[in-house]
Amino acid sequence: MNLALLFDEDFVAQNRVVLRGRRLEHIKSILRVSTGDQLPVGRVNGQMGLGKVIKLTDSETELVVVLDQQPPTPLPLTLILAMPRPKMLRRILQTSATLGIKDIWLINSYKVEKSFWQTPWLSDENLRENLTLGLEQAKDTAMPRVHIRKLFKPFVEDELPALLKGKQALVAHPGTSAPCPTHLNSPTALCIGPEGGFTPYEVVKLEEAGCQSVHLGPRILRVETAVPVLVSRLFDACL
Amino acid sequence: MNLALLFDEDFVAQNRVVLRGRRLEHIKSILRVSTGDQLPVGRVNGQMGLGKVIKLTDSETELVVVLDQQPPTPLPLTLILAMPRPKMLRRILQTSATLGIKDIWLINSYKVEKSFWQTPWLSDENLRENLTLGLEQAKDTAMPRVHIRKLFKPFVEDELPALLKGKQALVAHPGTSAPCPTHLNSPTALCIGPEGGFTPYEVVKLEEAGCQSVHLGPRILRVETAVPVLVSRLFDACL
Repeated sequence: MNLALLFDEDFVAQNRVVLRGRRLEHIKSILRVSTGDQLPVGRVNGQMGLGKVIKLTDSETELVVVLDQQPPTPLPLTLILAMPRPKMLRRILQTSATLGIKDIWLINSYKVEKSFWQTPWLSDENLRENLTLGLEQAKDTAMPRVHIRKLFKPFVEDELPALLKGKQALVAHPGTSAPCPTHLNSPTALCIGPEGGFTPYEVVKLEEAGCQSVHLGPRILRVETAVPVLVSRLFDACL
Repeated sequence: MNLALLFDEDFVAQNRVVLRGRRLEHIKSILRVSTGDQLPVGRVNGQMGLGKVIKLTDSETELVVVLDQQPPTPLPLTLILAMPRPKMLRRILQTSATLGIKDIWLINSYKVEKSFWQTPWLSDENLRENLTLGLEQAKDTAMPRVHIRKLFKPFVEDELPALLKGKQALVAHPGTSAPCPTHLNSPTALCIGPEGGFTPYEVVKLEEAGCQSVHLGPRILRVETAVPVLVSRLFDACL
């Protein structure tokens, strides 16, 4: 936690917050702060700054906060992911938030196991928790939006074309001839398939919607590796 | 497992292997192959090709293998990592192997907790298993070498200068003024600190040994994210 992300419900006054639970534990046992110490804080979807500890007990800590800095620039990226295996989903959500991705679509695909959609990690509370961990790692405050689409065909036919308007659209597809472009630094939509990849039918549907197939070289990367590799290629901003 | 990595002990004849345990389970329950089917295989530190299943029982499978393809080009990268938290070490080893990194140094740093060095994941057997998982993911056969150095000063003073000869040497150091270069595609050594970063003293010692400090932008990345992000920046080969 390189920054404590503050939510509306944490504020007891305009410039004062009370923290409990995970953030309190982290502040006490990892950051080991004492009363009077300052630590980086940020208000969700707002500014960042410093919080000065004015009270620290076993059950809560109270901070006076000064929020006067802008968060880092968001990536102009719409990430469209075939629903990952639940144990990977958490890390992918955290990593995506850390990298500055603000728009995440979890979609179905032939090789997505139906059971994946049953995971508790898709609840609003758990999504927010994992995205928060990613933002706190990066020192960012802008909460990503996650959209869940459990049917592939209606999504690609009815929603995707509008979603891709004004963006360069790519689908990471091993074995295709075009390498992934670099330094786009412009609005981009990136589709990444499940373990085993999108089916040929799905790739055709994505291409019909406006996506260009690009490959990642001879190595087959796990989705959780492909996301930072692709983001790092497409956007200078992330470095 | 996009490729079954074969070790000397798997070979019962020049072109025949018998597999048990994890690889057998994966072949049966995930790949669901039958006798007569073929699957991608590769010999550790050797060539890749196809293995044809000629026998499949509950306890073992026998394959006739034809190895006639070169593995992907290794990255010209020496990765020097402050010893990560054990639960992160496994993923970092797997990811590094998947990305094509062949030379990994795990070193001490002030912010590395002593307990990290006690993890069973540092045993030769466990290192090989996690690197194997990374190679099988990527479809590669060249086993990375892992070097363990539990003392920082002797490493940077006595070993590092020679290790850096003929390489561009970088240390990822948040807050420094120089951004990470891109598209080096030449022999490179990259140092990445622990959670919380190298200490100023450690950075000075690394710079004295020949490393240039570079930053990764405003976002603070976990080591497991920084590795693919940096590799993707430094080497076109990985895409």
